[in-house]
Amino acid sequence: MKKLLILTAACASPIAMSAKFVTQAVTYEHAGVKLEGYLAYDESKVTARKKGPGVLVIPEWWGLTDYPKVRAHQLAALGYVAFVADMYGAGVTTTDPKKAGELAGQFYGKPLMAERAQAGLDQLLKTGLVDAPHVAAIGYCFGGATVQALAFSGAPLAGVVSFHGNLIPPTADQAAKTKAKLLICHGAVDPFIKKEEIDAFKKAVDDAKLDYQFVSYAGAIHAFTNPGADEMAKTAGLVGGIGYNAPADQRSWAHMQAFFNEIFAVKK
Amino acid sequence: MKKLLILTAACASPIAMSAKFVTQAVTYEHAGVKLEGYLAYDESKVTARKKGPGVLVIPEWWGLTDYPKVRAHQLAALGYVAFVADMYGAGVTTTDPKKAGELAGQFYGKPLMAERAQAGLDQLLKTGLVDAPHVAAIGYCFGGATVQALAFSGAPLAGVVSFHGNLIPPTADQAAKTKAKLLICHGAVDPFIKKEEIDAFKKAVDDAKLDYQFVSYAGAIHAFTNPGADEMAKTAGLVGGIGYNAPADQRSWAHMQAFFNEIFAVKK
Repeated sequence: MKKLLILTAACASPIAMSAKFVTQAVTYEHAGVKLEGYLAYDESKVTARKKGPGVLVIPEWWGLTDYPKVRAHQLAALGYVAFVADMYGAGVTTTDPKKAGELAGQFYGKPLMAERAQAGLDQLLKTGLVDAPHVAAIGYCFGGATVQALAFSGAPLAGVVSFHGNLIPPTADQAAKTKAKLLICHGAVDPFIKKEEIDAFKKAVDDAKLDYQFVSYAGAIHAFTNPGADEMAKTAGLVGGIGYNAPADQRSWAHMQAFFNEIFAVKK
Repeated sequence: MKKLLILTAACASPIAMSAKFVTQAVTYEHAGVKLEGYLAYDESKVTARKKGPGVLVIPEWWGLTDYPKVRAHQLAALGYVAFVADMYGAGVTTTDPKKAGELAGQFYGKPLMAERAQAGLDQLLKTGLVDAPHVAAIGYCFGGATVQALAFSGAPLAGVVSFHGNLIPPTADQAAKTKAKLLICHGAVDPFIKKEEIDAFKKAVDDAKLDYQFVSYAGAIHAFTNPGADEMAKTAGLVGGIGYNAPADQRSWAHMQAFFNEIFAVKK
């Protein structure tokens, strides 16, 4: 297993001095598509004998770029076993929103969305490092929608966190089999998510009495957690649509940690 | 100064073993009305030489009951200098919603709301224990609305937290002088706060580009943070309107702490 000292912001804290980060590309297959996910954890905190909580990470519609890997490193630094799922196929990424829309478009409204994410979840559980009741999924943009779909498929998750994800109102049948608690981190002025969509989502989760928290962050637009979003906005012709927002990024990350402390029953 | 060992849930943690809690009734006056607030802090953490962050607490429409005092104790246990403001007059409390509505009704839509709260803030600052840039205000129900009004009056606050507060959309003039960041903790199914009011509030704070976070907690109704709310609902004929919700209480308290860590620039 390849071992790397990962240099990410999260590792700059003194607590990480004794960390032994392990990262690994993981190949797997789903519905005939060859996939390549990405595993990260801290061997000083988690081993097969001393299992830890697991977090599945679903990338943005751009595919499995460096961005979700950095998030996996940050999760590893916090003591989680992180696995970034590949939704599109080994090495398939894009910076073209038209192509990204086509790639993500294969999944919206179809069982394949949850099924492909579940294939990633299976890989995370297969590591033998994860304390099975303590598993969550987080996702960004398209990945945020995907973790909702995964939760609504009845996947055995303690919780899911959607960061600037498209909203998927669950049907009554989906809600009835949902086990996960939901944390929705939403950019208050995200132009890609219409007010009617928020209202429909809230109505569905309220009617179904699902356990959720919905947080709106002032001034945040789509992709607010991604420090590369401003640059990507220029390349992709999406200025004003996607953009980084540091306070919203930091706040939503803190809210995710508070949520994990709750669902993984960490005493503080 | 009266010193008490305060027995609250917050003091059960090991860290509080060496705590030296100080509590004190504080009489003051505003606009000819005699008021009695309540100060609480931990002398092992805060002194005139080693100042700490200050938190003003504004009670529910029932007046200065034991409930906001317990919150002050919890804040003291966290290292804050807490001062519960008296909005109505020394000893004026009620369990009758009609009377509470009359008492709170003196303030809504009038400058008196912020002014009376400011009188409490002045008392907090007058203790000489507070590191002046590090001051916040929190409030419950009517008090949640009041801390918004206080922020919109331009009060020198780093932030305000409204728990199940009525929502006050700021005017453009008010927004322009607002210094505080806002955390709005809202019960997702609170029957006392209409969807139109939420929409109007969000529009006002978005248009004014105020720094806010708005969190909706699933299944929570009015007064969701108050463990006595179920009992009070029976007495007051408000069953289904007000009620305690433990997860929403714990989550909003954790969100408040994350917010304080940010606005008081605490390194974690």
